[in-house]
Amino acid sequence: MFKVIDGGVTSAKGYSAAGVHAGLKKSKKDMAMVVSASDAVTAGVYTTNKVKAAPVIWDQGITENGTAKAIVVNSGNANACTGQKGLLDAEETAEIAAKLIGTEKSKVYVSSTGVIGVPLDMPKIKNGIEKLVPLLSGNGKEAAEAICTTDTFSKEAAAVIDINGKIVTIGGMAKGSGMIHPNMATMLAFITTDASIGHETLQKLLGNTVEDTFNMISVDGDTSTNDSCIVLANGMAGNDEIVYGTKAYQDFEEAFSYVLGTLAKLITRDGEGAGRFIEMNVVNALSEKDAKVLARAVISSSLVKAAFFGSDANWGRILCAMGYSGADFDPSLVDLSFSSSKGSIETVKGGEPLPFSEEKAKEILLEKEIVVTADCHQGSSCATAWGCDLTYDYVRINGDYRS
Amino acid sequence: MFKVIDGGVTSAKGYSAAGVHAGLKKSKKDMAMVVSASDAVTAGVYTTNKVKAAPVIWDQGITENGTAKAIVVNSGNANACTGQKGLLDAEETAEIAAKLIGTEKSKVYVSSTGVIGVPLDMPKIKNGIEKLVPLLSGNGKEAAEAICTTDTFSKEAAAVIDINGKIVTIGGMAKGSGMIHPNMATMLAFITTDASIGHETLQKLLGNTVEDTFNMISVDGDTSTNDSCIVLANGMAGNDEIVYGTKAYQDFEEAFSYVLGTLAKLITRDGEGAGRFIEMNVVNALSEKDAKVLARAVISSSLVKAAFFGSDANWGRILCAMGYSGADFDPSLVDLSFSSSKGSIETVKGGEPLPFSEEKAKEILLEKEIVVTADCHQGSSCATAWGCDLTYDYVRINGDYRS
Repeated sequence: MFKVIDGGVTSAKGYSAAGVHAGLKKSKKDMAMVVSASDAVTAGVYTTNKVKAAPVIWDQGITENGTAKAIVVNSGNANACTGQKGLLDAEETAEIAAKLIGTEKSKVYVSSTGVIGVPLDMPKIKNGIEKLVPLLSGNGKEAAEAICTTDTFSKEAAAVIDINGKIVTIGGMAKGSGMIHPNMATMLAFITTDASIGHETLQKLLGNTVEDTFNMISVDGDTSTNDSCIVLANGMAGNDEIVYGTKAYQDFEEAFSYVLGTLAKLITRDGEGAGRFIEMNVVNALSEKDAKVLARAVISSSLVKAAFFGSDANWGRILCAMGYSGADFDPSLVDLSFSSSKGSIETVKGGEPLPFSEEKAKEILLEKEIVVTADCHQGSSCATAWGCDLTYDYVRINGDYRS
Repeated sequence: MFKVIDGGVTSAKGYSAAGVHAGLKKSKKDMAMVVSASDAVTAGVYTTNKVKAAPVIWDQGITENGTAKAIVVNSGNANACTGQKGLLDAEETAEIAAKLIGTEKSKVYVSSTGVIGVPLDMPKIKNGIEKLVPLLSGNGKEAAEAICTTDTFSKEAAAVIDINGKIVTIGGMAKGSGMIHPNMATMLAFITTDASIGHETLQKLLGNTVEDTFNMISVDGDTSTNDSCIVLANGMAGNDEIVYGTKAYQDFEEAFSYVLGTLAKLITRDGEGAGRFIEMNVVNALSEKDAKVLARAVISSSLVKAAFFGSDANWGRILCAMGYSGADFDPSLVDLSFSSSKGSIETVKGGEPLPFSEEKAKEILLEKEIVVTADCHQGSSCATAWGCDLTYDYVRINGDYRS
């Protein structure tokens, strides 16, 4: 059993981090760095968008090599749609950092988030890295702040587990908060652990875990050009290498899932303009894939999201979204309920409406955290997806993002 | 060459229509009827949603039979998720109308739109039909009004063509305006023509034309439970039966496409809360399918739509939406431009940003009708999709629809 701890990207042994204002944004922190004391095994998952930002292309090469020592992140500029210059800028960023921390550029990840199509201001990036290196410390909070864009709070999570008598720590930080959608949204997530684990095992674990966490959240249905989830594992906990299929792997997976799941939910809670956090559970579906597709369709529907904004128990829109999801299910078997800390109401039984108190429904739906459960009564597969409501503020924030 | 005329569902020979207030909505007209003087060949295309409203299931049977004489439409209640009672209500609606106009219920289409999950108020429906029949006339305007829900204006279009010396007329009416998305959105469209044409030919023509018109628009990405596009062709123009592949077919197709395309664009213009009409052209794509997928992804993106609300030339979001569309294209070859009645600007050349005047861009994008063109430089296929911006009003309208 893992234990949740207060912490983030520097909680595991051997990691230091820093966050500074390099001038890419007006006044907020806009560059961060995470460094491992020793070379770390690494894994990464990246956006499926055909338009990939330059740093994503750079990072995919590092993930393939399997070894990394540091991550440099900037917010304020995505270095996407910046052509050949963008690729050179990503490489140069890695090179500047590598020199200062004494490693090769091929071990330095580079992540960017922000406006698309504007070349990076390299003098500012260089200056930022030079400011970052002397500030590297065991405190990850400023790094977590510096990677944010429209996020209203920074996102960290950490957990520890005992693996064969050794304390292993996993920590992470992430940023949202718009363009968040299944298949890696504009989210950056950086996970560090002191576990000893092989590259292939870590990559497999990451892929599976992302499927159930970051790929089960949606803010607005847009998959960005920069999405990345990068893991470093430096082995400094001194455990025996974690092998796939063992008890140690299962324990590690559980803690790892907790960290990624927590970050994913924090991203949704901080969705652009979001006022409500929606958890959509699909139970007893025919297959896990069907369950996931159904859950994601509901939290991705603009009409469902707008209904939650209005605290409207509009179960019809939920059934409707399930209906067009493409998943295999029988609408005439579905039960649907809403719940929150104020209680629970059943609104649909066997595909047909149940009478319910609108007053009670309103009371439940006025809460900030709503759980919707759809029981398909067809199989035994389940899935959960997380989303938020669609608000005036989402429109305001995204109607004028570049200015 | 066809000629555009002022008109709608009663423009073709032998059609009469009426619209009344039956009490399903507070004060607006909420029931309509269209009747052909003689039995008509019929075709229909329906929602792909697994959750199909009762009238859709009823209508699919009529389309299969291939012959119809009338259409009864109600707004204010979708008769969806209403179980066995819903199916019986749809059938009874057809039966009541059939008796009054002297035909069999198997020739009477029934369409509903409005709130999901509430049983139809059958006494009101019966009363509505009894009011409608004596009012049937050559004026289609009140019928076009009565099928509206949150629409802010009624939607009609009509055209005439000469087919082998006979004047053939095609007219239609439609309603939007939320839940509008590729693959038949909450839209109802009713097309009438006096052409003589076989059932199979008409069904094929309808399927193809819907692909390029109603399936190329999006308001909010939600495909509804009630979408229907129904055509009646009563042969009263006296033309020789239109046969697939002939010149007569091509001429008819052109006019038919005009009527459906015009109604589709009117729906988008009247998208819930929409302030701007967006036309997205994809040219020189690898295949027609890729072109369509690309064009639809752009007009369906919440981030792109919010940017248009803010008159922001955010070409990065457009490239990004193309990137996650799943279509085959090379982002590094794409050119992108914006235009309106105020002029045109090129913003991307070969996947990379061009410098442009933000002032000029703002001037262009403040207009109500914006055209975006993406040139893929890879093939020779084109597609056009139509959408609208995402506004505060969309959120307001959909945050409190049931009340």
